[in-house]
Amino acid sequence: FLLFSIIFDLSGIYGSSPDTLVLAAPVAAAHSIGATQEPDSSSAVAGEPGGNNENNDNSDCSASSTEMTIPMKEKVCIVGSGNWGSAIATLVGKNCHRLPFAESRVNMWVFEETVTLENGTKEKLSKIINTQHENIKYLPGVKLPENVVTVTDLAEACAGATLLIFVLPHQFLNGLLPKIRNIIHPTCRGVSLIKGLDFHPETKMPMLISQKTIAEGLGSNFSCGVLMGANVANEVARGDMCESTLACRFDEDDTSVDDDINERTRLIFDSPKTFRVQRISDVAGAEVCGALKNVIALGAGFVDGLGLGGNTKAALLRVGLREMATFCKMFFDNVQEDTFTQSCCMADLITTCYGGRNRKCAEAFARESIDGASSVKGMDCNERWERIEKELLNGQKLQGTHTAREVHAVLKAQNIQHLFPLMSKIHS
Amino acid sequence: FLLFSIIFDLSGIYGSSPDTLVLAAPVAAAHSIGATQEPDSSSAVAGEPGGNNENNDNSDCSASSTEMTIPMKEKVCIVGSGNWGSAIATLVGKNCHRLPFAESRVNMWVFEETVTLENGTKEKLSKIINTQHENIKYLPGVKLPENVVTVTDLAEACAGATLLIFVLPHQFLNGLLPKIRNIIHPTCRGVSLIKGLDFHPETKMPMLISQKTIAEGLGSNFSCGVLMGANVANEVARGDMCESTLACRFDEDDTSVDDDINERTRLIFDSPKTFRVQRISDVAGAEVCGALKNVIALGAGFVDGLGLGGNTKAALLRVGLREMATFCKMFFDNVQEDTFTQSCCMADLITTCYGGRNRKCAEAFARESIDGASSVKGMDCNERWERIEKELLNGQKLQGTHTAREVHAVLKAQNIQHLFPLMSKIHS
Repeated sequence: FLLFSIIFDLSGIYGSSPDTLVLAAPVAAAHSIGATQEPDSSSAVAGEPGGNNENNDNSDCSASSTEMTIPMKEKVCIVGSGNWGSAIATLVGKNCHRLPFAESRVNMWVFEETVTLENGTKEKLSKIINTQHENIKYLPGVKLPENVVTVTDLAEACAGATLLIFVLPHQFLNGLLPKIRNIIHPTCRGVSLIKGLDFHPETKMPMLISQKTIAEGLGSNFSCGVLMGANVANEVARGDMCESTLACRFDEDDTSVDDDINERTRLIFDSPKTFRVQRISDVAGAEVCGALKNVIALGAGFVDGLGLGGNTKAALLRVGLREMATFCKMFFDNVQEDTFTQSCCMADLITTCYGGRNRKCAEAFARESIDGASSVKGMDCNERWERIEKELLNGQKLQGTHTAREVHAVLKAQNIQHLFPLMSKIHS
Repeated sequence: FLLFSIIFDLSGIYGSSPDTLVLAAPVAAAHSIGATQEPDSSSAVAGEPGGNNENNDNSDCSASSTEMTIPMKEKVCIVGSGNWGSAIATLVGKNCHRLPFAESRVNMWVFEETVTLENGTKEKLSKIINTQHENIKYLPGVKLPENVVTVTDLAEACAGATLLIFVLPHQFLNGLLPKIRNIIHPTCRGVSLIKGLDFHPETKMPMLISQKTIAEGLGSNFSCGVLMGANVANEVARGDMCESTLACRFDEDDTSVDDDINERTRLIFDSPKTFRVQRISDVAGAEVCGALKNVIALGAGFVDGLGLGGNTKAALLRVGLREMATFCKMFFDNVQEDTFTQSCCMADLITTCYGGRNRKCAEAFARESIDGASSVKGMDCNERWERIEKELLNGQKLQGTHTAREVHAVLKAQNIQHLFPLMSKIHS
């Protein structure tokens, strides 16, 4: 019994489990695209990316190129540089350096801010990342690959990209999308890591951010998938093993592009030893679960704050998952039952309800309510949430309260609160 | 925002959630059977059961009666008196005292042992329970209802019972069942709380304990359901809110008995304020999940012991759930997809993987392997498990290692280990 074999074999386990057998063929196909490095050697690349295209010098592809040769080089831009954006940059950066079908350089758009260093001097965050290769504000202590390069001008960052990775609070999207609508590469596609829900201002119907908000902002031909999973950012950055789900259908409207494009996209995120990405086609189910799980996590935090036991918490997760499924099926077409036991749904719900920031803040909220601290009395609910967010999250945003409010609005507008008693109760 | 309303309303939430709407009609029907007390007043009965049948004096039904008047009085015997048996006795005892269709007295069969009291004197466990109304060995600190009466002779305990509740390690069944085969009431049915799997010695096919082992021991006409859920015994006994799933089909072969018998059985376990029991008909799915989750929990314990993160653990739970589903569908007919998001499956898996005894022991096992304690070196694997079980479980039994071994045997016999990589890995 070699205990440590479990660690090293776990990713293999996930890879060959029944639910991923479907991936075996595409993975093999992708390798035949021309991967020259074994997956095993990928980790060795980590600290020493050096420069651009060392391995791929015979297939350069300039930023302004619009040639449609297939296979064309993938050019990736990460739109966002917070905690999760920086964590995913560690994986995407390594992969783009390694994969023969991708350009090594990965642009990362940074919302510029000034950071005070330990020695008291002030410095621009974008410059710190480009020189120290570390996002000292949102992901301190983790080295980013040197081929991840920050760009503060959004249009410049996105120019020529074939894949945009959206990873920022969804409230910022409406302001940013018009700025790149006319400059993006004609074959550019997107993957959204955003966990939130949008609602149509008039009909109060829920809208998918990746498919609706982003497509409306970038033109209806823009196709966007989502990457969602049980992925607490710091653990991913630390290299803990985990899974994630890529939901995309990039080949849906274009029969001239074969399934390679979906599989290529998966390979840009997948890290065989630590970050195992599985692919499904149910974008709606994956995206809605990613948003709603934050609402359930607030409930889990209340349970923890009130000192209720593990039985109660498990019951809450279970009812939560069923309400999430009901919500998905009620408002979106082609949602698949299988999605609910993917990493993007069940596993993400579990991780978030045991370790996420929504849970943490809700626990604090419940606890101070019990303690009856004098500071709490007479305080407005929103003020309290804002204060807790500020105290506990170091500048990160709390998505759950926002989503809970929006979900409540849609349930009320449709007069179906009674079908979602848990979510309605969490909101109130 | 009245925080505490969450506590009191949670059971209401579960009751009216979409997945329990199907229960609305049967519950209403059951109330019309003649319940005279409001559910709210049930907790007031708790401490003062007094004697037998105070509320039901016009419908006495002696133990030897074989009359088939319907509705006949339910006479309940709990076969087992360990930690979980004692915990469920607190609920069943109160319910039988309260419900008009049940006899107040509940027999509890105790495997007699001698316990040393604090003052040094030795006393029989059965006597302690009957006088102190507390199982000081397996559920210390919790008062049992006085109408729960211990009986050490198995045949005497089961005589005349209409409902046998099996709650003991399944290894003991084969020895016990022949002793009651010929004395049980002709209309007696069973509910098993046993979480384990049996395997046919020759074919190595998995067998359902409730439907196969118990039916084979008691006669093939004996019908047995299961009660499984996210129910850590001590939390149930403490009155923490939780859910459970009753899977039964008592009316299957007998059209003269209407659905009342299933609903009656549910009411014997259900406690509206704290222990919400939901009913399904998929006995196989519920029972297999209840057993296999202990195997997954060993894996969860390894993850904890190795200090891996929440992402890894959530991934393990997710893959585990899918393997459990694959196993159920492969070996049993009529397994329903819906079962896997019931309390007996998903919620039970979560609770067990975060708080159960299999997880706890596996964590200790992994930790001492890392530490490389000298006591571990050269020790046989089985010996180590036995020692940990002894040190950590206070006389309780570890089910997971036993089930893991049996599951491994069946997978090997069928040559399908590759379809269950996680369970196979946990065993090795």
